[in-house]
Amino acid sequence: MAVKATVQRQQVTLEAVARHAHVSRQTISNALNAPHRLAPDTLARAKRAIDTLGYRPNQAARSLRTQSSQLIGFRIEPDRDGINGAVLDRFLHALCEAARLEDYHLLLFTATDDASEIGGYDELLRERAVDAFVLSSTHLGDARTRWLADRSLPFVTFGRPWGEQDHRHAWVDVDGAAGTEAAVEHVIRHGHRRVAFVGWPPGSGVGDDRHAGWLRAVLAHGLAQRGLAVRGEDGIESGRTLAASLLGLEQPPSALVCASDSLALGALRAVADRGLVAGRDVAVVGFDDTPVAMAMEPGLTSVRQPVEKAASAIVRLLAERLTGAHVPPAGELIIPTLIERSSS
Amino acid sequence: MAVKATVQRQQVTLEAVARHAHVSRQTISNALNAPHRLAPDTLARAKRAIDTLGYRPNQAARSLRTQSSQLIGFRIEPDRDGINGAVLDRFLHALCEAARLEDYHLLLFTATDDASEIGGYDELLRERAVDAFVLSSTHLGDARTRWLADRSLPFVTFGRPWGEQDHRHAWVDVDGAAGTEAAVEHVIRHGHRRVAFVGWPPGSGVGDDRHAGWLRAVLAHGLAQRGLAVRGEDGIESGRTLAASLLGLEQPPSALVCASDSLALGALRAVADRGLVAGRDVAVVGFDDTPVAMAMEPGLTSVRQPVEKAASAIVRLLAERLTGAHVPPAGELIIPTLIERSSS
Repeated sequence: MAVKATVQRQQVTLEAVARHAHVSRQTISNALNAPHRLAPDTLARAKRAIDTLGYRPNQAARSLRTQSSQLIGFRIEPDRDGINGAVLDRFLHALCEAARLEDYHLLLFTATDDASEIGGYDELLRERAVDAFVLSSTHLGDARTRWLADRSLPFVTFGRPWGEQDHRHAWVDVDGAAGTEAAVEHVIRHGHRRVAFVGWPPGSGVGDDRHAGWLRAVLAHGLAQRGLAVRGEDGIESGRTLAASLLGLEQPPSALVCASDSLALGALRAVADRGLVAGRDVAVVGFDDTPVAMAMEPGLTSVRQPVEKAASAIVRLLAERLTGAHVPPAGELIIPTLIERSSS
Repeated sequence: MAVKATVQRQQVTLEAVARHAHVSRQTISNALNAPHRLAPDTLARAKRAIDTLGYRPNQAARSLRTQSSQLIGFRIEPDRDGINGAVLDRFLHALCEAARLEDYHLLLFTATDDASEIGGYDELLRERAVDAFVLSSTHLGDARTRWLADRSLPFVTFGRPWGEQDHRHAWVDVDGAAGTEAAVEHVIRHGHRRVAFVGWPPGSGVGDDRHAGWLRAVLAHGLAQRGLAVRGEDGIESGRTLAASLLGLEQPPSALVCASDSLALGALRAVADRGLVAGRDVAVVGFDDTPVAMAMEPGLTSVRQPVEKAASAIVRLLAERLTGAHVPPAGELIIPTLIERSSS
């Protein structure tokens, strides 16, 4: 029984305490860290809820609030194939520059998955003070944002909360759907009427978003969509196979809008495999405007994520949260830019 | 006169004090930070020299030695065209992983040139403790290594000291000459007898090193070299122009060994411009094995820098220096790997 009580106590979250007291999470946080900010009756109500539920705030998280290290923790992902990692590397450079303008530096750490990333936060909080965290690659059922929110730690994500159940936090994201939509509009302007989509398997927030933009634009123009969306693993060979299946249709598409430059690179090869010329016979558009898109000949038209804008917005949101003022969760969608080259 | 004396005092370096006392720099450093390590007469000699020359060690640098932040400062360079920055981004990921194994994290900062990078060190030392620095992109007359050495700060560079006058410090580098040499040996094995070099203008340590490897291998095989080395700015268009001049010779080369993947990409285009096929009519080899080299069709043979090995060696050298023991300057050259693809 004693064991069970202990377990229950550890699972009490800040949010549960806030709900119990009918106040905001920030109010509970203030009751713990800045009681002078609260009216006496609010403070009393918050404290009662904290005691009733047996909430024990993370000690490290509290000390975090009381000192400033001017450091932002950021988990760097492992080096990938160099194509898909490119946008995150661009973001890292941009984040470092943006942080600099607010007198912050980045503290980098590595992790292999969500659980070890959370372990990394925990360790950083115990070892030394970082003021805040920036997270990238949010995904459905993201355990990291919940963990940080439960401890009232200031953080902003590059990537929105994707699931209904995911915690609503401060985020900045690039509007992927607007990107694929712009790609479809672009090829329609160049006379294409059968526009296909080559994307990732359903179930990833980012992938479904890019699919949704294609579908929205195609339907808005009254064009066919049935059988024109093919989806599979990311990668050049996968893109080649997926695009080949489209080009082999009885009524093949004349334009291929792809969810990544890797897939688009594969699509370019599938086009060449059939003796066709990209940009003349079939339009191909990629996503992320990686160095590879620029270096291709013909150059690959691609959707570019404005990571500099995203990084600035993230640091601004973070700075607001670090003033200690009550700031509600906020999200900001940034519209990407289509970089037109000769593949379309 | 008073002004002049002050100026002179500020310019006194640790090295000058060491020379004056006929002891090592480490001894002077110990006299300031760990006097118990020195024999009484050595300590007295060191102190006399410090007083005579009026040497004033950087206060922040001294406090740096007395506490451990487990942070390594690293300047991240601005995002470049994505091709030439790729190897440094790979290095950053590898350095973060290697540091992790020794319980270090990276603190990232930005700078636009050597002077502002030095400003960054100074600021980091004043603001908070970092234990050490890792530097990339060493070059002739590097002011950064001198500045750090004068303050007895622990640092290791990814890149060797290039100039005769440059400070001898701890470094790890990839043997670029061995890379281009391997590229020449590779094309010779495939029957090529006229092997040209496409590189950067003379005067850069890295560029001259890659040129030297080509020359060494060509001479070792008794092959022609006169007129077969063309050098210009980095970049795809530059590579195209340089390679075109070689292919337009009365006796054109049948193999082009390039100092970068950007130049090699341009060379591939120059080959195609003449209606030739890379890998069949003309062999092309790049350097750095960037994502672009992998994504090309035909794939570009390229020299790959083992940045993981370099990062591990750097963290090891750094850890040795952070134990406080006297460690002489050490350098380690890592042999790169040729990744063979169909362009050669």
